[in-house]
Amino acid sequence: MRATIMYRAGDVRVETVPDPRIVEPTDALITISSGCICGSDLWPYNLMEPGEGARPMGHEAIGVVQAIGADVRTLKKGDLVVMPFAYSDGTCVFCHEGLNTSCVHGGFFGSPEVGGAQAEAVRVPQADGTLVVLPVAADNALIPSLLTLSDVMGTGHHAAVSAKVTRGSTVAIIGDGAVGLCGIIAARRLGAERIIILGRRPDRIALAKEFGATDVVSERGDEAVELVRGLTDDLGAHSVLECVGTDQALGTAIGIVRPGGAVGRVGVPHYETTAAWETAFFSNVTISGGPAPVRAYIDELLPDILEGRIAPGRVFDRVIGLDEVPDGYRAMNERAAIKVMVKP
Amino acid sequence: MRATIMYRAGDVRVETVPDPRIVEPTDALITISSGCICGSDLWPYNLMEPGEGARPMGHEAIGVVQAIGADVRTLKKGDLVVMPFAYSDGTCVFCHEGLNTSCVHGGFFGSPEVGGAQAEAVRVPQADGTLVVLPVAADNALIPSLLTLSDVMGTGHHAAVSAKVTRGSTVAIIGDGAVGLCGIIAARRLGAERIIILGRRPDRIALAKEFGATDVVSERGDEAVELVRGLTDDLGAHSVLECVGTDQALGTAIGIVRPGGAVGRVGVPHYETTAAWETAFFSNVTISGGPAPVRAYIDELLPDILEGRIAPGRVFDRVIGLDEVPDGYRAMNERAAIKVMVKP
Repeated sequence: MRATIMYRAGDVRVETVPDPRIVEPTDALITISSGCICGSDLWPYNLMEPGEGARPMGHEAIGVVQAIGADVRTLKKGDLVVMPFAYSDGTCVFCHEGLNTSCVHGGFFGSPEVGGAQAEAVRVPQADGTLVVLPVAADNALIPSLLTLSDVMGTGHHAAVSAKVTRGSTVAIIGDGAVGLCGIIAARRLGAERIIILGRRPDRIALAKEFGATDVVSERGDEAVELVRGLTDDLGAHSVLECVGTDQALGTAIGIVRPGGAVGRVGVPHYETTAAWETAFFSNVTISGGPAPVRAYIDELLPDILEGRIAPGRVFDRVIGLDEVPDGYRAMNERAAIKVMVKP
Repeated sequence: MRATIMYRAGDVRVETVPDPRIVEPTDALITISSGCICGSDLWPYNLMEPGEGARPMGHEAIGVVQAIGADVRTLKKGDLVVMPFAYSDGTCVFCHEGLNTSCVHGGFFGSPEVGGAQAEAVRVPQADGTLVVLPVAADNALIPSLLTLSDVMGTGHHAAVSAKVTRGSTVAIIGDGAVGLCGIIAARRLGAERIIILGRRPDRIALAKEFGATDVVSERGDEAVELVRGLTDDLGAHSVLECVGTDQALGTAIGIVRPGGAVGRVGVPHYETTAAWETAFFSNVTISGGPAPVRAYIDELLPDILEGRIAPGRVFDRVIGLDEVPDGYRAMNERAAIKVMVKP
């Protein structure tokens, strides 16, 4: 089959690789009907060193079950399913607590063992615990929104939950990528009264406003901190969603959060700072978040998509075929696309 | 009057200084009947550089109101009061939210402007919001426990609240100083089923067990992490109280906390680490805490002391006069005393 492999920063290729096959009796194979490129894929696209090996890419997908292992009970061939970016057994203590990303038998897609989802097919370990059958056809207009349940909508929701967004609160969101935009949807859904987006690109800001952002701050760093403080009677935001993962983003988050407030971070951390530990301490700021247990959130978010209350699929502004994936990386890296859908 | 002044690391002196006086109409003056030395005082005792000026020391006290400013309404001369380590107006938005340490008119004792409480008397700004009248006489046997409401009992409670201690949970406490020991009381009070103390000195461990610790880990670093994980089915503790403030303490905290769990930190951070940001992220660990709003907690904790349900005053294992304060610092710094009470 054809699959996407990253070799080093900037060097991502679509190649012919061995077809995936059932390895464990708890596996399923899915044929991917829609995949996508993630903002987090841009970290290796910019930083991966030569010599780190060949890395299969992609961790978000909607697909059709092609085969199941002998122990799979809840799926059958032909089911249309959404695949969270992490696999999990659904039965361990952490899965029961809703933290599927810490599943004791879990792991992440996009590794040599499991493969990636920017491909024609993928092996899904712990298929019963991982995959969710979708009650729609593969050509349903809701597919883009349902695909965001793989990652970005669940991750934006996790940022909001981690940042303790409550009804009537003031929320600031750092990052105007797909996760930040989904964070707006999540914050609004949880009842935030005021939603400040920190971002600058006109297409993203326009979408942010449609999703529910009430204020826009396009400056960065100290200027952004001043502006957000000005917008909040110098108190800061109750909740800050940190959807980037850089030092500057973390510093801004802690600079604009209200004393006693919370930062929900979902950007994979690439921090060098030590100062933020102290700043957060003296203001009693809570720092929470991590890889989103999107599997756990599907139960809560799926009805809102099916019933049209939220439309996170609008973050997709480009659709490409599998062979165009390298172009898709380039477009997302240059911020020419918000989020690229891949149709193998 | 006589008061304690720090000049540089290791150089703490009791000197004659000008008597404090009412400066603002919201001030009160209190004559200190019981003060103490805090673990946090050991940071400047070890690290203060020459040239940082002369720093009045002490931020915990029980005293008698000696004079009040024209605007003070809730206090009168002769009242026996407990003084939280931070002053606060009791009326601002943060005080209303119970975060008195972020009061917009607040601040901390132990500064040249306000003075310290290892002294014969101290000026208390925002006296109405800050001081709490005690319904006992100055010679009551509960005075040591009531004095811990100034800081260490409220701070241990804050660590436990920040670490989200709940009924039936497993809690680990890093630090066997007075705050860590009060953290045991707080964790037990909040219903923790298992309380693991990380500490090594026999006198402290004995007291820890009397306060409710169920397990003791005396090793440090990686060995401590292994042992706590072994005690918790390799899952880690739901809640970790970080009552030290060093890199090693933070690293251990994040090493022993359960995925999805919380670290409540109350040790003033002196961290150099950047790695902990990432480790905490991938386990979805919440990091919370800061200077404890002990004023807010007095309402909740005072009845438990008055009715004998908790006895945090047992952390005091030495009582000295004001002129012996330098010896008291030495004893606490050498860990020869857990906590030293000062009777001016």
